[in-house]
Amino acid sequence: MKRIKIKTLFKSKDEFSEQHVIICGWVRTNRSQAQFGFLNVNDGSFFENLQVVYDTKLDNFEEISKFRVGVSVMVQGIVKLTPELKQPLELHATEVVMLGDCPENYPIQPKRHTREFLREVAHLRPRTNLFSAVFRIRSVAAYAIHSYFQERGYIYVHTPLITCADCEGSDQMFKITTLDMKNIPYTDDNKVDFSKDLFGKQAFITGSGQLHGETYAMAFGDIYTFGPTFRTENSNTKTHANEFWMIEPEMAFCDLEGLMDIEEEMLKYVIGYVVDHCPEEIDFCDKFVEKGLKDKITSLLNSKFVRITHREVIDILKNAKVNFEFKPDYNEDIAKEHERYITEYFNGPVFITNWPKDIKAYYMKLNPDNETVAAVDLVVPQAGELMGGSQREEDLDKLLERMNTLGIEQKGIEWYLDTRRYGGCVHSGFGMGFERLIMYLTGIENIRDTIPYPRTPKNCEF
Amino acid sequence: MKRIKIKTLFKSKDEFSEQHVIICGWVRTNRSQAQFGFLNVNDGSFFENLQVVYDTKLDNFEEISKFRVGVSVMVQGIVKLTPELKQPLELHATEVVMLGDCPENYPIQPKRHTREFLREVAHLRPRTNLFSAVFRIRSVAAYAIHSYFQERGYIYVHTPLITCADCEGSDQMFKITTLDMKNIPYTDDNKVDFSKDLFGKQAFITGSGQLHGETYAMAFGDIYTFGPTFRTENSNTKTHANEFWMIEPEMAFCDLEGLMDIEEEMLKYVIGYVVDHCPEEIDFCDKFVEKGLKDKITSLLNSKFVRITHREVIDILKNAKVNFEFKPDYNEDIAKEHERYITEYFNGPVFITNWPKDIKAYYMKLNPDNETVAAVDLVVPQAGELMGGSQREEDLDKLLERMNTLGIEQKGIEWYLDTRRYGGCVHSGFGMGFERLIMYLTGIENIRDTIPYPRTPKNCEF
Repeated sequence: MKRIKIKTLFKSKDEFSEQHVIICGWVRTNRSQAQFGFLNVNDGSFFENLQVVYDTKLDNFEEISKFRVGVSVMVQGIVKLTPELKQPLELHATEVVMLGDCPENYPIQPKRHTREFLREVAHLRPRTNLFSAVFRIRSVAAYAIHSYFQERGYIYVHTPLITCADCEGSDQMFKITTLDMKNIPYTDDNKVDFSKDLFGKQAFITGSGQLHGETYAMAFGDIYTFGPTFRTENSNTKTHANEFWMIEPEMAFCDLEGLMDIEEEMLKYVIGYVVDHCPEEIDFCDKFVEKGLKDKITSLLNSKFVRITHREVIDILKNAKVNFEFKPDYNEDIAKEHERYITEYFNGPVFITNWPKDIKAYYMKLNPDNETVAAVDLVVPQAGELMGGSQREEDLDKLLERMNTLGIEQKGIEWYLDTRRYGGCVHSGFGMGFERLIMYLTGIENIRDTIPYPRTPKNCEF
Repeated sequence: MKRIKIKTLFKSKDEFSEQHVIICGWVRTNRSQAQFGFLNVNDGSFFENLQVVYDTKLDNFEEISKFRVGVSVMVQGIVKLTPELKQPLELHATEVVMLGDCPENYPIQPKRHTREFLREVAHLRPRTNLFSAVFRIRSVAAYAIHSYFQERGYIYVHTPLITCADCEGSDQMFKITTLDMKNIPYTDDNKVDFSKDLFGKQAFITGSGQLHGETYAMAFGDIYTFGPTFRTENSNTKTHANEFWMIEPEMAFCDLEGLMDIEEEMLKYVIGYVVDHCPEEIDFCDKFVEKGLKDKITSLLNSKFVRITHREVIDILKNAKVNFEFKPDYNEDIAKEHERYITEYFNGPVFITNWPKDIKAYYMKLNPDNETVAAVDLVVPQAGELMGGSQREEDLDKLLERMNTLGIEQKGIEWYLDTRRYGGCVHSGFGMGFERLIMYLTGIENIRDTIPYPRTPKNCEF
């Protein structure tokens, strides 16, 4: 007899009715009485537990009734459909074997644990309902992202993590080295002698694959990246981590309007996919994490995202009868409180376009007004900024002028500039922080609870 | 009129016959005569080029006839099916517009370039036929891997890249730091003062997600990782890179036989998927990279992989009438030449199991003979070792004994050992180097040509 996964039992229950099956899993609860007992068993394949009924007909009834939470078991039994009960089926055990014991001091007991405590046992927290839901949603959402792009012919590009181009602001990047840090070698003129390092020069781990992504968009048309990203930011907030995952699509022959079309379509696809494939998990989050979550994401699916310029946003904010902590300004970024006001004002996601050039990156397309760039941020209710993107400056002269103004060196990124020299074209791209999406999808408020082993300042355990 | 991708034209050519369409792309060749000319245009959506026919009816005929290789263009025209010609369709241009010029010194000309030269223009090489094929196969293979696991309910886990656990041999890991390497701070007892570093201690980027993966397998049953991996190895061979991508699945309630079943099924699924989705690219590689490639991978699809122990392999090698450079030995690893002999001997992929414990990692399951471990390497014709895995030692005492013998510290990986303390069970996992798979799938012999921007010793350009 082959082991059946619990999800298969639930999803094809009629097929298994009255059948003899084997399951393996971990005991989540054990309620034993004099003549019979119930084990709730979870094998990780499904959010819900399987109820196993055992009774004194089993030789080891006494032993089973003492199984502690966390024990791993193998159960043989007969599937009984139970439409009259809370759960749709039960397994009536004919044999229950302990595979691995679990001591009484097992930290994950069937009770509420604080999220702070669970971060301290990050290796055990996926065994709780909450993190079972969050990390299953994370996995399914990751796949939905791949599916969206692959079905549309995008090429998945593994841009490099290690880089020597320190153009994107090396102070934000981790240095990597194979040198002995106790005995750093120096050159005669008292600089670190990186010729002795593995790559022969100073190397970093990168904070973005965009520049490399653009070079591939100029060959494949539509590309995307999906990989880990690193920032050295020393800030302890609910939305910052030093290691996180990011998606960076880049499309040739695509302007700002086309970019927004793709962002909107992709987000709806991913959310729709998660709603379809994780109904139990979304229900759980709706009940225990963020009341109204399900309504929030369903209404997004059916909304048409607003498209509005930065100037128009500032106008709305200035006219608002609200005492903002930060005064809205045509030349400034908008603050969290402004994002909140705007998404509430429109009651849905909002694309904010045409930002003042001085607060955006050098590679963004300068608009004819010479004052704004063809950038777009997508802000959504509660989560704030979810995606940031732009049409890219494809005009080499304008790009160089902008780099010059901002003091960005050409040296080191000549290869990037080649995208403008050799058959350049209108192109656009965006970045989406994956954890930000998971926070939005689950209602979880702290980024540390959306990534398996979070890395934040002074915190690199496990 | 909306732009149509060239792949769409080819795949639905009947639908577009005699239709007016717009395409955008890059000129691969331009052959002009007195009255008409041909542009071969590629937009990256498809391996094949679209032939655009233009003639003197166009106002800018003279201009078009001078378009150089690499120029980006927008073409409007009428689709003509051409079953009598080499290509199934042509576009008869009614308008051709240059979007971006390309100078004469453009390095990617329509001729054979050496792969060594193309590595020097890694940002441009995806515009060649060869790398268009290789990196499309890479993208499709990556998706096939996700699909295989997701369709079977595996959870995709983003294990951390940054780690402070230096248990897996920190000398093989890159150190990362935010300290000023010119002014490393020291403690009073002359050690590096890592308390001033971002994480408050020494940190690395990891060479494997396995240990973290195991903790998630103990919650979700079946999991997989797929992410970049780093090794500091200072070796310049065709098969080593310092940054590469790896897939590491881990399955609870799964023994060595079950592991081999999964490895075999997954490999066949991925290869079958690539053959189905990249027929043009595989044909190209079969013609220009490795003659017989298609036969090689098709025959793998239809073969049953041999399963044989390490001892039996050594027996076969000892009986072989071959003068091996390295003498086969029951207590030793097998060399590349041995792998080659064995895959030729069986004319197909071979699982080699039950290796001497002393040449394998501490976490592998000790067999009852106390001499071998339940490890398995999959070796395939030409490419050699493609996957390495094992059943894991789930017995805490045996695991600790083994760690003790090998001098591996418990401190720092207590969380990992918890997987054996709290409801441990039989479980198994394997690792597959993604570039190794791409080499096998394309026939490419140098790992530098299977990853967009390769990082090897003294080589971290772009």
